[in-house]
Amino acid sequence: MLFAVTMDVALPTDMDPEVRADTLAREKTYSQDLQRAGEWVSIWRRVGQYSNLSIFDVADNERLHDILWNLPLFPYMTIDVTPLATHPSDIAVG
Amino acid sequence: MLFAVTMDVALPTDMDPEVRADTLAREKTYSQDLQRAGEWVSIWRRVGQYSNLSIFDVADNERLHDILWNLPLFPYMTIDVTPLATHPSDIAVG
Amino acid sequence: MLFAVTMDVALPTDMDPEVRADTLAREKTYSQDLQRAGEWVSIWRRVGQYSNLSIFDVADNERLHDILWNLPLFPYMTIDVTPLATHPSDIAVG
Amino acid sequence: MLFAVTMDVALPTDMDPEVRADTLAREKTYSQDLQRAGEWVSIWRRVGQYSNLSIFDVADNERLHDILWNLPLFPYMTIDVTPLATHPSDIAVG
Amino acid sequence: MLFAVTMDVALPTDMDPEVRADTLAREKTYSQDLQRAGEWVSIWRRVGQYSNLSIFDVADNERLHDILWNLPLFPYMTIDVTPLATHPSDIAVG
Amino acid sequence: MLFAVTMDVALPTDMDPEVRADTLAREKTYSQDLQRAGEWVSIWRRVGQYSNLSIFDVADNERLHDILWNLPLFPYMTIDVTPLATHPSDIAVG
Amino acid sequence: MLFAVTMDVALPTDMDPEVRADTLAREKTYSQDLQRAGEWVSIWRRVGQYSNLSIFDVADNERLHDILWNLPLFPYMTIDVTPLATHPSDIAVG
Amino acid sequence: MLFAVTMDVALPTDMDPEVRADTLAREKTYSQDLQRAGEWVSIWRRVGQYSNLSIFDVADNERLHDILWNLPLFPYMTIDVTPLATHPSDIAVG
Amino acid sequence: MLFAVTMDVALPTDMDPEVRADTLAREKTYSQDLQRAGEWVSIWRRVGQYSNLSIFDVADNERLHDILWNLPLFPYMTIDVTPLATHPSDIAVG
Amino acid sequence: MLFAVTMDVALPTDMDPEVRADTLAREKTYSQDLQRAGEWVSIWRRVGQYSNLSIFDVADNERLHDILWNLPLFPYMTIDVTPLATHPSDIAVG
Repeated sequence: MLFAVTMDVALPTDMDPEVRADTLAREKTYSQDLQRAGEWVSIWRRVGQYSNLSIFDVADNERLHDILWNLPLFPYMTIDVTPLATHPSDIAVG
Repeated sequence: MLFAVTMDVALPTDMDPEVRADTLAREKTYSQDLQRAGEWVSIWRRVGQYSNLSIFDVADNERLHDILWNLPLFPYMTIDVTPLATHPSDIAVG
Repeated sequence: MLFAVTMDVALPTDMDPEVRADTLAREKTYSQDLQRAGEWVSIWRRVGQYSNLSIFDVADNERLHDILWNLPLFPYMTIDVTPLATHPSDIAVG
Repeated sequence: MLFAVTMDVALPTDMDPEVRADTLAREKTYSQDLQRAGEWVSIWRRVGQYSNLSIFDVADNERLHDILWNLPLFPYMTIDVTPLATHPSDIAVG
Repeated sequence: MLFAVTMDVALPTDMDPEVRADTLAREKTYSQDLQRAGEWVSIWRRVGQYSNLSIFDVADNERLHDILWNLPLFPYMTIDVTPLATHPSDIAVG
Repeated sequence: MLFAVTMDVALPTDMDPEVRADTLAREKTYSQDLQRAGEWVSIWRRVGQYSNLSIFDVADNERLHDILWNLPLFPYMTIDVTPLATHPSDIAVG
Repeated sequence: MLFAVTMDVALPTDMDPEVRADTLAREKTYSQDLQRAGEWVSIWRRVGQYSNLSIFDVADNERLHDILWNLPLFPYMTIDVTPLATHPSDIAVG
Repeated sequence: MLFAVTMDVALPTDMDPEVRADTLAREKTYSQDLQRAGEWVSIWRRVGQYSNLSIFDVADNERLHDILWNLPLFPYMTIDVTPLATHPSDIAVG
Repeated sequence: MLFAVTMDVALPTDMDPEVRADTLAREKTYSQDLQRAGEWVSIWRRVGQYSNLSIFDVADNERLHDILWNLPLFPYMTIDVTPLATHPSDIAVG
Repeated sequence: MLFAVTMDVALPTDMDPEVRADTLAREKTYSQDLQRAGEWVSIWRRVGQYSNLSIFDVADNERLHDILWNLPLFPYMTIDVTPLATHPSDIAVG
């Protein structure tokens, strides 16, 4: 089941550099593990923004919330979730 | 070069049924030709909306505008364009 | 899988009375069939608005879109969809 | 008398961990007591958000305000209240 | 139980003059009957707007919705409802 | 001359408790003095909000600004002012 | 008593040319009469907009509403009203 | 050349009282010097707001920016600029 | 004196084709005459929109308003005007 | 490939003066180097704002993001990106 998710990041400008580096490293590992598992299908940077647009393929709403809630950067993010469905013009449909 | 594009469609409720059917058929063909050509990479329905979220892979801004401007449904659409770039956490990067 | 959906209705003030009555009757039947089937769990009027707040329990995103897209009033509606998950404070959880 | 209420929570990222844990524990107890009393009818997590959608069934406006004002997380919340009424298509109506 | 309600009116500029006059006359009678009954407590014009701010004192949400839904101008109105409660600084309280 | 005024209050969560208590006490006295003087006609709590809706009856704009500017909570408030006039449907008019 | 008022005009593109010309002529006369009377103190065009910014000096809210409500273009206008007071830095004050 | 400018002021509630008093004194002097020079034509308080509406008459855009950028309160202001032109209904025109 | 101007165009979908073609031809001529005169410095299409971003270099506000007001497409446009000034980092400055 | 970019700057009012001066100096050098290289085509101050409007001419989305992400003021900026294309009325087209 597909969802489009945008994540805008706002880190405090006075954040401790070590905490910051550690949080970003954990975020990257967390994201890449889910990409390899096939649940985090795509991730793109939105040009000029500290923000990404991602596509998730998950079992259900519960799983998506679990993934997003546990993002190391979650406390610093504004997240927007759009449920997706098959488009009738998609050539993959038939 | 990637772009995320949302297209919200608002057809007049009193639109002539034949014009409507013909416009929708032409829109579908137009979209599928570009999907087969590899420029219209993905198209999803946004759940509960007469709207799609699409990913385009085009040579440049000129080409993207040319594609969108010539959509048969263009006069009935509200379009939003987001330029995308590679995300440093993308496992496809390195 | 649960979703909260708001549906705002805007009927043209010059709509043909018979078409209007017929559309509203079909909307009611359509809604009540889905309520009896257990997919349209709740429907409330938002006070002072031609609008409802509904809770749906459906198999997946595809099913929810299918239900909403086929609402007889869909062409006259502005729809907002919020995916829901279990809340950790819900007494039904543990 | 029914109300839909959304509560968005924004805890300071530098909040004292003990104060935070204590406040969250009190919030959970407070919510569950009202759920058992039948006034806080439903509570769902909004996917990807530190936010809930709740349904309240209370005697009047005064009681709803009293409940919300005394939430342990109230100082950190943005709250939206929507009064609800019976929908004529509700199969429970008759 | 008190509610503040704003009603913005947008009549079509090409509305039939007789229909318009009749609708406005019925709206006035409808409002004044409810004022005399004590449910429509106050009504003020918002300066420079085709809009009013009103205070209602009704038994419950159902009654308020019933009143608003049956306004002769309802199809031409955008309505906003705010539930009110006693303010602790109100000198009428203690 | 009547005005509707909404006042949203946002106190810093780390405000000194004594300063806070003192400011709130002064605000209450200030409001009640003006209520007794007949200038602050009504004050209601907006349900679920740290906010009030008030009606003022003052000599002119200057007086209203003077009252609002000197509110002890003014530095913590977002204020919205709506000038009111007599509504032609008001039964008190004719 | 001073008010700043913005008036945005949206005439239907298919308006009858004679009705349009007549309405505009009456609007101009109406405005100029009030300017000569000293109540409509200033009127400026907002650059690039079919809109004006005006300053009114009137006896009270009732009078301002009466003036605006009777504008020949009122049915085609979106109006915004801002009550003004003396600024303490105004050199005309002290 | 005329411009309408609104300036909303948001001083930190914990600002040093001396810095605050000095900044406000310099702002007043700065404004009054420009009023006497004829460039800052009008300044009004917006009722209930820490905000002013001002009219400037300056040589060009560069001069207006220079004036606004050097306001002692500039770092605490949100500023909105509207270029103005002569209105054809202005009695001063013809 | 420079201004950035965005012009969003919304032509009625049922516009007479000849009127439409004629209006667009006049708009093009009008724009190109001003480009050749050096007042309409730049014009770009905003990708995916029936909209342009333009830079104007004009004598004053009056002249800019005169240009925009007389655009053949003016009745169908939503226009936004931003006054520009020299940026201190511009290499052309020093 | 052209893009219009607006950059709004919000520096903390308590920023260390040396850090501030150093950051601004690096920003200026960074901008001027890109102007000389021909990628940062234009930069204007938006009148009355701590903000600029810029035109970029870059190879692709990736390059634009790289430029913006590395702005010394990036952590303090809100950035808006608009992809541009050739306008058919541009006299430079042919």
